[in-house]
Amino acid sequence: METKFLLGESQIPTHWYNVIPDMPGPLAPVIHPGTLKPIAPQDLAPIFPMSLIEQEVSTDRWIAIPEPVRDIYRLWRPTPLFRAHRLEKALGTPAHVYYKYEGVSPAGSHKPNSAVPQAYYNKLAGTKRLATETGAGQWGSSLALACQFFGLQCTVYMVRVSFTQKPYRKSLMELWGAEVFPSPSPQTNAGRAALAQDPESHGSLGLAISEAVEDAATHDDTKYALGSVLNHVILHQTVAGQEAKQQMALAGEYPDVVIGCHGGGSNFSGLAFPFLADRAAGKQVRLLACEPASCPSLTKGLYAFDYGDMAKMGPIAKMYTLGHDFMPPGIHAGGLRYHGASPLVSQLVAAGQIEAIAYPQNPCFEAAVLFAHSEAIVPAPEASHAIRGAIDEALRAKEEGKERVILFGLSGHGQLDMAAYDAYLSGHLEDFEYPEEKIRESLARLPKVTV
Amino acid sequence: METKFLLGESQIPTHWYNVIPDMPGPLAPVIHPGTLKPIAPQDLAPIFPMSLIEQEVSTDRWIAIPEPVRDIYRLWRPTPLFRAHRLEKALGTPAHVYYKYEGVSPAGSHKPNSAVPQAYYNKLAGTKRLATETGAGQWGSSLALACQFFGLQCTVYMVRVSFTQKPYRKSLMELWGAEVFPSPSPQTNAGRAALAQDPESHGSLGLAISEAVEDAATHDDTKYALGSVLNHVILHQTVAGQEAKQQMALAGEYPDVVIGCHGGGSNFSGLAFPFLADRAAGKQVRLLACEPASCPSLTKGLYAFDYGDMAKMGPIAKMYTLGHDFMPPGIHAGGLRYHGASPLVSQLVAAGQIEAIAYPQNPCFEAAVLFAHSEAIVPAPEASHAIRGAIDEALRAKEEGKERVILFGLSGHGQLDMAAYDAYLSGHLEDFEYPEEKIRESLARLPKVTV
Repeated sequence: METKFLLGESQIPTHWYNVIPDMPGPLAPVIHPGTLKPIAPQDLAPIFPMSLIEQEVSTDRWIAIPEPVRDIYRLWRPTPLFRAHRLEKALGTPAHVYYKYEGVSPAGSHKPNSAVPQAYYNKLAGTKRLATETGAGQWGSSLALACQFFGLQCTVYMVRVSFTQKPYRKSLMELWGAEVFPSPSPQTNAGRAALAQDPESHGSLGLAISEAVEDAATHDDTKYALGSVLNHVILHQTVAGQEAKQQMALAGEYPDVVIGCHGGGSNFSGLAFPFLADRAAGKQVRLLACEPASCPSLTKGLYAFDYGDMAKMGPIAKMYTLGHDFMPPGIHAGGLRYHGASPLVSQLVAAGQIEAIAYPQNPCFEAAVLFAHSEAIVPAPEASHAIRGAIDEALRAKEEGKERVILFGLSGHGQLDMAAYDAYLSGHLEDFEYPEEKIRESLARLPKVTV
Repeated sequence: METKFLLGESQIPTHWYNVIPDMPGPLAPVIHPGTLKPIAPQDLAPIFPMSLIEQEVSTDRWIAIPEPVRDIYRLWRPTPLFRAHRLEKALGTPAHVYYKYEGVSPAGSHKPNSAVPQAYYNKLAGTKRLATETGAGQWGSSLALACQFFGLQCTVYMVRVSFTQKPYRKSLMELWGAEVFPSPSPQTNAGRAALAQDPESHGSLGLAISEAVEDAATHDDTKYALGSVLNHVILHQTVAGQEAKQQMALAGEYPDVVIGCHGGGSNFSGLAFPFLADRAAGKQVRLLACEPASCPSLTKGLYAFDYGDMAKMGPIAKMYTLGHDFMPPGIHAGGLRYHGASPLVSQLVAAGQIEAIAYPQNPCFEAAVLFAHSEAIVPAPEASHAIRGAIDEALRAKEEGKERVILFGLSGHGQLDMAAYDAYLSGHLEDFEYPEEKIRESLARLPKVTV
């Protein structure tokens, strides 16, 4: 029995799948943070090139992937789809468990799927430099790599606590040619203000976003790049789900449930949306987003208009949110520590088309260790949430005696996150209580948008 | 034009290729460290299971790979062969450059190719625990993983300086279930003696080998496992070269030169020996081993009988050696810091069938950074020696205006070696002088073997 289902380079998708025409109803407008009124696409031109803004609002179901982007995808795509024979055996489940593994990219995660086209379109538009933020460093390193391919400069504002604790991902960005500043930094007004208030500030993702957006908005040759949440980022990630559909067909199966971890939504959507599209053709497939219990936007947040960043500089979107100044605890799945969610995922959750579940980090690491013992790959802490979800589905199938087909996304490897495994294995990993009161407080500060 | 040449799982080799029947003349005997007389295979039984001892001396050209081993190989094999289009372009060379990438294994290097069968044969023989040494951690983590697959316990003696400097590879071993001791350790006589002499000792690979061998020799349920040098280890690694031949055929080319980095010899031989076998059929192919200038056994050592370990506990073999107590400088390619070499590679170098070249570490890191910028993958410091060799061959082809076909082995990724890149990028990487006097001194202490 095959373990891996592989495709040739000619099977890399030629188009990205845009879910917008298949959404249940019109999209909510995007709101200006100053006027609290809807904004037009061109209002985003100071920070994004028009080609990406057009993708952000496009209603075309299929958008062609430029050949120079597909050429770079060839370095690691199509990524493999695995049948988790050994995990199934360890669980004693009749379920068939598959995983799509994006950790084979040179940066070790799915993030280059969008970093490469973002760098490409910026290069075409004459951008000289891209500014971005990064938490744990998965996105920052991917954008550094993408900029290296197209000869763009890259500036990364890295949350200071990660800059100090995860030196290897910073080194990776520098090896690929990026300049990396710990955020808050003295490079921007936002950073200087934060440092004036607290010179020892650990920083936050919301603040780092503000620094990167300010950098882009105040330099003519510089644009901003975001690694998740936005429609065009999710669009780019659909290469994963499209490949997975071809690979499930090779395996002669179709998933009953598709599972992904969820932070801003790009990894989850990239795998799930191409399957969601099959529902129109009558396919029955559940879609399950797994998020951290300490930052539970989809399961405990409000579906409301909120700022995308803490400093209220970026646009306001309708999404599941815990409040733009909600500060999640320092869990090891740094990529899932976002107060909001993709507006597309949010609308689908609100419409009952996507399910969501929240897990504390210890059960996720327990799942990741079982996975590393049976399937050998060391999962990124983010991906461990999807593994927990898949294992729970497989155990339920065992209880019910059903041969369920489960597909989950293994969004990246965790070889640069070994400190998190050390903490788990030595029993020092904290499970944070669901911070109900903190969320209630921050939700009281949502902007008053009336549209 | 294709970037990757992939094979299906059915194309994983069914047999390992044993070079012994194709060697130029009989093998030199293995010598007992106490009597200085030849030893018989069964003398090795206290530390190795008979099945591996039989492989060590087998004269069969093909040895079947057990199905349970092939089943595990399926988790990452066949590994991809890449055409380095972007590197060729960066160099402006007419050469066609290919690389076989072993870094896709869960441990990130070629080492599991031998760790898995070694664990398997030990399991069959009733071994309960394997003891081994590791320097940087590539071999130790691979054996930990292999023992996890077969339910064996695993004890790793990790050179103390690496134990302290490379905590992530230690964590990887622990995640896969191994117990890891910094060497010298209080667990063994050899370790206690070293600690008595110097409680702050950094340790050495030679000392860690002595600890692991002592552990195995003094516990009935425990055997020893070595990650390179020995014939059976090299045998197991030939899956890489056999796959590469199939993949070069897919590409419609045959290499003019096959290049690998060389420490103990397992990575180099695994790729090169299946091509060497083609010479009998009239194929012209050069084989080039690239070693560090600071530990230049093949280029500056003596082809003579010497101990395999510093404490003179293991067997004596005829090989290129710098002397068993030669202590190489602390270069970042920890996997290449061995005073000796595989007896098989040594005999072939002595017979003029394999070429060798030595490089200082700065030119190797320069090559690795160019590779990371063009091909995206971050190479292990060990593999950077092969990249340097391949780039030099490609530049010579450019000078000569020749369309040469170059194949090199990219034995592992370097994401756990980012401190080395930091040192290189900040200009703090030392190039050690060729330690001529130290080598002359240690060569004066070779054992006096007369056979």
